[in-house]
Amino acid sequence: MSAPNLSMNLATVRKQYGFAEAVEECLRQGITAISPWRDQVQAIGLVEAERIVRANGLRLTGLCRGGMFPAADAAGRQAAIDDNRRAIDEAVTLGADCLVFVVGGLPQGSRDIAAARGMVADGLAAVLPHARACGLPLALEPLHPMYAADRSCLTTLASALDLCAALGDGMGVAIDTYHVWWDPDLEAQIARAGREGRILAHHICDWLVPTTDMLLDRGMMGDGVIDLPKIRRWIEAAGFHGPQEVEIFSANNWWLRPGPDVIATCLDRFHTVC
Amino acid sequence: MSAPNLSMNLATVRKQYGFAEAVEECLRQGITAISPWRDQVQAIGLVEAERIVRANGLRLTGLCRGGMFPAADAAGRQAAIDDNRRAIDEAVTLGADCLVFVVGGLPQGSRDIAAARGMVADGLAAVLPHARACGLPLALEPLHPMYAADRSCLTTLASALDLCAALGDGMGVAIDTYHVWWDPDLEAQIARAGREGRILAHHICDWLVPTTDMLLDRGMMGDGVIDLPKIRRWIEAAGFHGPQEVEIFSANNWWLRPGPDVIATCLDRFHTVC
Repeated sequence: MSAPNLSMNLATVRKQYGFAEAVEECLRQGITAISPWRDQVQAIGLVEAERIVRANGLRLTGLCRGGMFPAADAAGRQAAIDDNRRAIDEAVTLGADCLVFVVGGLPQGSRDIAAARGMVADGLAAVLPHARACGLPLALEPLHPMYAADRSCLTTLASALDLCAALGDGMGVAIDTYHVWWDPDLEAQIARAGREGRILAHHICDWLVPTTDMLLDRGMMGDGVIDLPKIRRWIEAAGFHGPQEVEIFSANNWWLRPGPDVIATCLDRFHTVC
Repeated sequence: MSAPNLSMNLATVRKQYGFAEAVEECLRQGITAISPWRDQVQAIGLVEAERIVRANGLRLTGLCRGGMFPAADAAGRQAAIDDNRRAIDEAVTLGADCLVFVVGGLPQGSRDIAAARGMVADGLAAVLPHARACGLPLALEPLHPMYAADRSCLTTLASALDLCAALGDGMGVAIDTYHVWWDPDLEAQIARAGREGRILAHHICDWLVPTTDMLLDRGMMGDGVIDLPKIRRWIEAAGFHGPQEVEIFSANNWWLRPGPDVIATCLDRFHTVC
């Protein structure tokens, strides 16, 4: 059986597995694309992570994550830039398709979201030359507006694409169904993203009703209300045919289940729902 | 002392007071504008509520709320239309500035948000002639996207204004800082709302960090991260100078405090923060 066009974001099984064990179970179930988080790479070490990736011919649909640029003072903003340069190096070492950015919210004590957005643009401009020199695309992931204060002042696909246009080559977007499904402008902005050549990643999970936790109650595909096939068709029509990356934060459900079951369920739902 | 340019949405003190008691305390503290909810009116009776409103020369900045149009079958959609006609009659009886609409989310079992939006447009079109005949403006309140599934498929001010334009005269918007503060297009859309003559109401409360409940953890002005004066200036520049209406759902904080303290705090923060 050929590998499904699915990538496993390792956050989905972060409570069950370390990097090596997650890869082992993915491979056992026929999955050859993954997207790890930096802390998961760090835990095993970049050298060993790279070895596992190369030895198994894994595709990395992204490294999660860069970003978190806004800070209350210049030293904090510079520290974020420095850390993002390291993230770029790690993504390059691992051969990732892109580095995914969660750009950050308001600095401590600030109510100025326009200023935060400016810090994000400045931070990206500071690291972009390094990414370009390395040939690594940077993927802005607009997050759901409920994270605007503390995680991402970038709240819409339209504004992410505007920022890409302002920054130029080497920038793109990661489109995550969870974050954008509510957007009345979604179809038009996905088409625009395609026209502008910006789609770098396609993340999937579902919106549960009710949602009991704003961060850690994301749903398995099919358990919520997002029309995943419709959004997939829009993304494919826009020219992106890369793997759909399953990313589910689920403290009280999927993170508590046996890893093999979670991965098997992702595969099953991918084939039947997405 | 003249009355402040503040309206008390009675949801803010719904656990402390019935309609009559809430009005009494508002008047005692110099507040002469309110916005009640239909269940609060129903509990005292429409006739008595109207008597209290007229006897005290109260301004009603709105009646909350119409809407909830989408339903899984035609009978459910017709029931919603019928109920909205009654809501219009109640708002007219009370002399409200407008009827505020929370339009509704996805029907049970549906993943088709475009269809839900169509049901909203159809429902509004069905009741608008009655509202026009009564001279009552209908105020669409776009809600925060985190309510897209279960409360409001209308998630942005831009899409609310598009819907107003499609429906025509007698339609407008209620701009609630809690629901729209994250929107990168907010300043432009408020200006547009002014140009198109659509601003009917200005609701205020604050976004807390962290937010511990998606519905009932809204913040008192000044306790969160919304730049309320900036949004007020945008709304004033767009030509709306009506009262700012304080609407705070707060199950674990403000709803537990003595009513006079809550109202006094609203007034104090209104003068010092907004």
